[in-house]
Amino acid sequence: MDPFAPDPAFAAGSVFVADWDLCHVRLQDDARFPWLILIPRVDDATELDDLSEGDRVRLMAEIVRAGDRVRSLGSALGQVVEKLNVAAIGNVTAQLHVHVVGRRRDDGLWPDPVWGRGPSAPYAARLRTALESLGSN
Amino acid sequence: MDPFAPDPAFAAGSVFVADWDLCHVRLQDDARFPWLILIPRVDDATELDDLSEGDRVRLMAEIVRAGDRVRSLGSALGQVVEKLNVAAIGNVTAQLHVHVVGRRRDDGLWPDPVWGRGPSAPYAARLRTALESLGSN
Repeated sequence: MDPFAPDPAFAAGSVFVADWDLCHVRLQDDARFPWLILIPRVDDATELDDLSEGDRVRLMAEIVRAGDRVRSLGSALGQVVEKLNVAAIGNVTAQLHVHVVGRRRDDGLWPDPVWGRGPSAPYAARLRTALESLGSN
Repeated sequence: MDPFAPDPAFAAGSVFVADWDLCHVRLQDDARFPWLILIPRVDDATELDDLSEGDRVRLMAEIVRAGDRVRSLGSALGQVVEKLNVAAIGNVTAQLHVHVVGRRRDDGLWPDPVWGRGPSAPYAARLRTALESLGSN
């Protein structure tokens, strides 16, 4: 098996933010919602039970950490998060990944989930601001 | 605050299965997908970070356990699960709950997520079979 690398499909809609203890962390390039993607750096994982018990505990901790970062990013962008949406779906891109999305009642899709609901709104010039807000966390 | 009780909204579309260590467990009454809902029995929790660190670890373990049960239920019903979809959304019913849904490429909605995508197909007479399949797990 190849060593871990994020599925190339992630590059099309998101940018690398950081490597945390377990996960490769990406910002979804969609200014409609503050939205991080956590990809555990574990080869060939597609389901939560492909992770060791220790890695599952780490993943839960990093999901909570990502929720904090999403709230901070939302505040920095004037999109104060009212609810976090967390999901591991993987029907399109099978590599195990967890979405952590900040939602607001006025976000345009509420209360529907965000997945598969385009078109996305790339950050463009605001991407630098968003990444700086995520900073060294 | 009142002691824990599942939000009455859950009664409309799901049936009680079991109380696990942390979660009140329900079967979504939708024969399109084997689908369990985990509701941590923690008063006033709406986000993962409303749980203690210990309860988060328990929740992750029960999510994996629910995935096993969903696979078993799918097999019992002739709906062999190809991918698990796991999500904590809560935009409609705020009480913290986690969906664990078994998906198949021929399930009629693949690869879209299931949330907000009705109409559901109640089990009716098959509900007893589904519950029995979940049995004493």
